[in-house]
Amino acid sequence: MITASIITIGDELLIGQVIDTNSAWMAQQLNKIGIRVERRVAVGDNRDAIWKAIDEESEKANIIFITGGLGPTADDITKPLLCDYFSGSLIINQDALDNVTHLFENIFKRPITERNIKQAEVPNNCTVILNKRGTASGMQFSKNNVLYFSLPGVPFEMMGMMEEYILPHLSEAFNLPHIAHRTLVTFGIGESMLADLIQDFETALPANIKLAYLPNHGIVRLRLSAIGTEKKNVENQIAELFARLKILVTEYLVTDEDEPMEKTIGKMLLERNQTISTAESCTGGYIAHLISSIPGSSAYYEGSLITYSYQAKEEMLQVKQSTLEKFGAVSEEVVTEMINGLLLHSKTTYGIAVSGIMGPTGGMPDKPTGTVWMAVGNAEKVVTKKFHLRFDRQKNIQLTAMNALNLLRMFIISSDKQ
Amino acid sequence: MITASIITIGDELLIGQVIDTNSAWMAQQLNKIGIRVERRVAVGDNRDAIWKAIDEESEKANIIFITGGLGPTADDITKPLLCDYFSGSLIINQDALDNVTHLFENIFKRPITERNIKQAEVPNNCTVILNKRGTASGMQFSKNNVLYFSLPGVPFEMMGMMEEYILPHLSEAFNLPHIAHRTLVTFGIGESMLADLIQDFETALPANIKLAYLPNHGIVRLRLSAIGTEKKNVENQIAELFARLKILVTEYLVTDEDEPMEKTIGKMLLERNQTISTAESCTGGYIAHLISSIPGSSAYYEGSLITYSYQAKEEMLQVKQSTLEKFGAVSEEVVTEMINGLLLHSKTTYGIAVSGIMGPTGGMPDKPTGTVWMAVGNAEKVVTKKFHLRFDRQKNIQLTAMNALNLLRMFIISSDKQ
Repeated sequence: MITASIITIGDELLIGQVIDTNSAWMAQQLNKIGIRVERRVAVGDNRDAIWKAIDEESEKANIIFITGGLGPTADDITKPLLCDYFSGSLIINQDALDNVTHLFENIFKRPITERNIKQAEVPNNCTVILNKRGTASGMQFSKNNVLYFSLPGVPFEMMGMMEEYILPHLSEAFNLPHIAHRTLVTFGIGESMLADLIQDFETALPANIKLAYLPNHGIVRLRLSAIGTEKKNVENQIAELFARLKILVTEYLVTDEDEPMEKTIGKMLLERNQTISTAESCTGGYIAHLISSIPGSSAYYEGSLITYSYQAKEEMLQVKQSTLEKFGAVSEEVVTEMINGLLLHSKTTYGIAVSGIMGPTGGMPDKPTGTVWMAVGNAEKVVTKKFHLRFDRQKNIQLTAMNALNLLRMFIISSDKQ
Repeated sequence: MITASIITIGDELLIGQVIDTNSAWMAQQLNKIGIRVERRVAVGDNRDAIWKAIDEESEKANIIFITGGLGPTADDITKPLLCDYFSGSLIINQDALDNVTHLFENIFKRPITERNIKQAEVPNNCTVILNKRGTASGMQFSKNNVLYFSLPGVPFEMMGMMEEYILPHLSEAFNLPHIAHRTLVTFGIGESMLADLIQDFETALPANIKLAYLPNHGIVRLRLSAIGTEKKNVENQIAELFARLKILVTEYLVTDEDEPMEKTIGKMLLERNQTISTAESCTGGYIAHLISSIPGSSAYYEGSLITYSYQAKEEMLQVKQSTLEKFGAVSEEVVTEMINGLLLHSKTTYGIAVSGIMGPTGGMPDKPTGTVWMAVGNAEKVVTKKFHLRFDRQKNIQLTAMNALNLLRMFIISSDKQ
């Protein structure tokens, strides 16, 4: 099995100022082509630490990916370090220089500086990987049968170089095994209850199959992974096991694709030729954002009324002042009127309405922080649900959105049956 | 200097199914109290790999944090492994059992299972760290002068245990140096131009000061870090340098706090006792979400009209059908009418309107994917701006939102002067 280690470089990773999304994406892509990532290591902008990390990971993996530290500024030390590590010397690479010049002349439309030209320097013993999306070239080295790739830390640039050159190159260069993953999404059941539910299935799994539980915002994803040499055998084996797993969790099953709930719902709406709009108070547009972040959502997503204030609820959604005064903004009565006001304006098949107190302030004795009312409805019917969340503001917003989307999903399914 | 390594455990990290946000948060907190995180390592749910990682990191740091693998399911192998690593034996801990029982009886309101009770088992030679937010206990070990903390991978649970016990405990146990960070936020200037602008300043920095460039969505944050033994000296030194840096970048300066743009704008609105609403097409509620994710935003955020379809633009914002037909939804004329319609309804001081083509589909010969029109205005005046973005859907949405917020920020400042 060909293995890889990913080394990410940057002080910002060690003081927690940025979250490393690159490694996750790279691991995903490498896994798909049958390369197993065994370790991910983050080190600071420190020569000794980087050098030692490359030494150590070289003993553990066949391929080493190094991201970050290729920028034009003084804290970017990866390139001279790699030049020394592989005993090369820095030279201007003409292709890299042409690329930098092209970017500045035609895309950025800014004069090129000395600093930018230096970006076209590379060690003379590397293979240059062109970066069509930025000025820092990638570099490929080889030493003692280990392959090294150095890539910029800017996600968009790194991704382009992985997709256009590195992944196809690795697929050709190695005889890779077949790895298959199948993931299903459950909602409304905790990790341990789920484990009890599928205990017999799990203990009987063959050795080349792994099962993982991935909980997040009320969702638990179950992932089966299989590895083998014959693509067909691996695919058949995982298909059979996955079908059994689906039956075991059918009551909680959202989808048998590894996709966010908003995408599942988008597909349901497309299939039914139906539409959706949202009326949001406490989630402030987050549900709308989730729905509209799916490509092609304009086919089923009309728009939303985000009514944060009392006044906005009255003016935009025709919630009655008397209802607000009598029951408060966070109440079954108000979310019901919000749905009715929403559907009157938007004329979509379904509507979602939410109103709650996300914290840290705003809680009251009878309605503590985390109290949420939500409603889902169509022209015939409205269903409501109350929640008591107990997390921080961000997580409360996310959980409210996920629960509202799930309530909609259930509502669509129950509408099918009528 | 007391150093730490963070080991995160989970196959999901190595196949890229989840993004590791825990390490970043932990690193942030540890840095604040003067503990330097030197390395972060991610390994899979594999006994040998975890064991080896603990061995290796033990040679490099004074404190080892281990997160993940403490759940109730079969892929969670950290606890028995640590029990063997530190030569202990598993026993039921009464405090942990009381906590699990309390959670099931009073919070989850579900019957407790055998699997849950096993969560109260810990090695007999560890100090138990109570987890008030979940069923998996934390564990503290010590061996050869290295301190070990094992924590659950669920962020909300890990955070509670760090804040309530581990951070105060470490601050007391060690004589920690003082680390100070100051960060400022710039917008509208690239990393290399910024580096040229402050080159003399950067090369003259003393050895105990580091400068980092953190680019993200059109923003570049500049972070100065200082380390020293005397709190007062460190604070004075960084204050003086930071003041000079601010002057150098004044033209591009958004704020001298390490905060998102939406928070800076929130403060500006609060100070001026002004309000904001948004009319969003292509960003689908994302700008509203950013604004409302700031605690206390209800003081200045009224609500939004998210008009994804032509029909919604006409009905909710009174954009004229003839304008849509003549100029198209992505046009200066439409975003101007969107602002006017928005301010008519919401009666806020300012409004933001955006309309664009985020991709991957929807582009046209004269308006390719990435074309965005935005407008910001108040009752007196509307300013508009056009963009050509060249990224994927998610990044185009994020960049549009950041540029719209920045346009608002500039508009507020220019309104002050009138």
